[in-house]
Amino acid sequence: MTREKLRIGMFGYGCVGQGLHDVLNSSRGFRADIVRICVKDRNKKRRIPMSNFTFDKNDILNDPSINLVVELIDDADEAFNIVTTAMKKGKNVVTANKVMVAKHFRELVELQAKHKVSLLYEASAGASIPIIRNLEEYYDNELLYSLRGILNGTTNYILTKMYNEGKAYDIALKEAQDLGFAESDPTLDVDGWDAKYKLCIITGHAYGLFLNPDEVFHYGIRKISTFDIQHAKEKGFKIKLVPFVGKTNDNTISGFVLPRFISSDKYLFNVDNEYNGVITEAAFADKQFFSGKGAGGHATGSAVLSDISANSYGYRYEYKKYQQGTVTNYTRDYGIEIYLRYSSEKDRKLFALKDVSEYFSSKLYKYVIGVVNLETLYSLREQLSSMDVFIVNTGRKVSPQTP
Amino acid sequence: MTREKLRIGMFGYGCVGQGLHDVLNSSRGFRADIVRICVKDRNKKRRIPMSNFTFDKNDILNDPSINLVVELIDDADEAFNIVTTAMKKGKNVVTANKVMVAKHFRELVELQAKHKVSLLYEASAGASIPIIRNLEEYYDNELLYSLRGILNGTTNYILTKMYNEGKAYDIALKEAQDLGFAESDPTLDVDGWDAKYKLCIITGHAYGLFLNPDEVFHYGIRKISTFDIQHAKEKGFKIKLVPFVGKTNDNTISGFVLPRFISSDKYLFNVDNEYNGVITEAAFADKQFFSGKGAGGHATGSAVLSDISANSYGYRYEYKKYQQGTVTNYTRDYGIEIYLRYSSEKDRKLFALKDVSEYFSSKLYKYVIGVVNLETLYSLREQLSSMDVFIVNTGRKVSPQTP
Repeated sequence: MTREKLRIGMFGYGCVGQGLHDVLNSSRGFRADIVRICVKDRNKKRRIPMSNFTFDKNDILNDPSINLVVELIDDADEAFNIVTTAMKKGKNVVTANKVMVAKHFRELVELQAKHKVSLLYEASAGASIPIIRNLEEYYDNELLYSLRGILNGTTNYILTKMYNEGKAYDIALKEAQDLGFAESDPTLDVDGWDAKYKLCIITGHAYGLFLNPDEVFHYGIRKISTFDIQHAKEKGFKIKLVPFVGKTNDNTISGFVLPRFISSDKYLFNVDNEYNGVITEAAFADKQFFSGKGAGGHATGSAVLSDISANSYGYRYEYKKYQQGTVTNYTRDYGIEIYLRYSSEKDRKLFALKDVSEYFSSKLYKYVIGVVNLETLYSLREQLSSMDVFIVNTGRKVSPQTP
Repeated sequence: MTREKLRIGMFGYGCVGQGLHDVLNSSRGFRADIVRICVKDRNKKRRIPMSNFTFDKNDILNDPSINLVVELIDDADEAFNIVTTAMKKGKNVVTANKVMVAKHFRELVELQAKHKVSLLYEASAGASIPIIRNLEEYYDNELLYSLRGILNGTTNYILTKMYNEGKAYDIALKEAQDLGFAESDPTLDVDGWDAKYKLCIITGHAYGLFLNPDEVFHYGIRKISTFDIQHAKEKGFKIKLVPFVGKTNDNTISGFVLPRFISSDKYLFNVDNEYNGVITEAAFADKQFFSGKGAGGHATGSAVLSDISANSYGYRYEYKKYQQGTVTNYTRDYGIEIYLRYSSEKDRKLFALKDVSEYFSSKLYKYVIGVVNLETLYSLREQLSSMDVFIVNTGRKVSPQTP
């Protein structure tokens, strides 16, 4: 295969952009030039000459000599403008923007086909773990039962600090912010949005279904208390934020984001700090596990670098599972066994728990373990933030609803 | 990308072949027919009609309608005949034969280029773990410091049984044989040959160097004793058979196969029984870990299936690191800290250990921990099987020789 010489226009020059710039300019045998970098802030001091930069996106988008746009900015709406304009002008694009990809997934897939361009976004789903590429290329004909994992480095860092060092949630969050793992507004991470967007992107390649993120239930770690950590420790579990997607029958999947108890014999138990890990279960390959760094500029940069290289070889996602069209439905009629820590019996009733197997009450806190229907959780999604509750998926299989 | 309709000629009908046959004939959206299966034994009872079979390889090799040969036989020499003949006739090939690929690596790479055909062999290196594809496609521009892992399911099963259940080596080996994880002649597995062939194949894609297996030192687990297991347990280690390859400088690598102590905080500690696991360390992606089943028909079958599917999309290995040509040398001038259990001081002297950090002597056994040069180990390779010794890599970095 001949390798195309890349002339790159880059948007954003944060830590990923700077790292990439270093690597691309020093890498032997990699035929890529960064022609121009578009940034927003005219006053920020840059470590390379200002002649490398522009403040006008059209300097890149209208430059016919630029054949690849690398989009690394925070603003999802502006990223969508840039990416779609570039594609319409026949340029290939590499992006790390999970919010943008998840929210406009189907449209972005259609634009690729229409304008015969390639959009790659490995860094948007598992940071350094090559999960999209493996789903697309390696599990393309595997009967995939389920996929779950730790996809958010920030919450995993916070949970690790709380568990290992007994730190309170606020302190651990502050530490993550100081280290640059968490944004000043941590909502996207700690409430599970980030994990959900990644889950939606992964689902597109695992099952060929482009989910509307609004239809997928997510729940984060904001309401976790020392009682919950204490309970987990007593039972030998850690608590991790674990997005899940899996088949409920031949043509239907379910999926959600919930904290989950993880016992010490499980792969995810040792995925700590800012690391991510993904477990796939499939008919032929059985259980497989991938792990790597899930936050930080270099981890994201490694995936972006890999996408740029793939682009130079003409690679594009084939959306093989979507082409096969086997899975056609997403359902929330799905039973999940949860641990519900709560204070008001009125709140507890809202969950309509079935098959209650444990109940505990003390002056400090109460919890119950039982099966909730995902549809019920979804219907409560607006109220959950104002309730004094915390929810953890026990991870135990529920029959007959969970396969 | 258009997908080619595959007409497959298969060699061998063991457990992998039978499983594949099931999957290919039942999979939706997979355009592949198994036209004919060539087997050796005319008298073995088959579970499908005899009209599917032939005993003459030319019925496949000379059939112009067959565009893919899937080679799943044991005999490496006969496999080489079949595979090279098929390639010369313009047919693409998928194989799981690690001995054949490792022994004829460079020739097979050249034949692919000469006859413009594709040879895929993911199943030959890590069973179900897609390590070759990831090295080729995902780490193609990464500065890879090292790769190590558990690549042999048989020895891992034996070591797990010895460690967890206190079984003697002979008993554990017998169990592995009864379960079909080990051949009646276990030499290939227990003496480290299998791990070495896999390491050589992986090195071709990780660093672009086609090593002559005869030049690479390997050592297995045949001489392990309960003393060694006892010692490891006291120190909190497990013993695993771990092939290693890594950079010693910009253009040079070293590599070998040795048992290794693994502490409980390491990924490989929990890779037990027939599972395999691979750890890569790279500049940008940092440490990554892949794990999956390493023995059994289905694990191997999943990799073969993936190669067949990739073939239908026109995929071929680009040998990107070989094209880049950065790494040009393999060296055995490399210091490794080892645990040497021995009985005769004369034997010990042969290892010329430096920097001895521990020495232990009792009536039952003696051991010493010190640094051996890989060249010295290699020069002793013929004698090791007749010495009363066992060698384990401590895994501690040795400076300045190990980076």
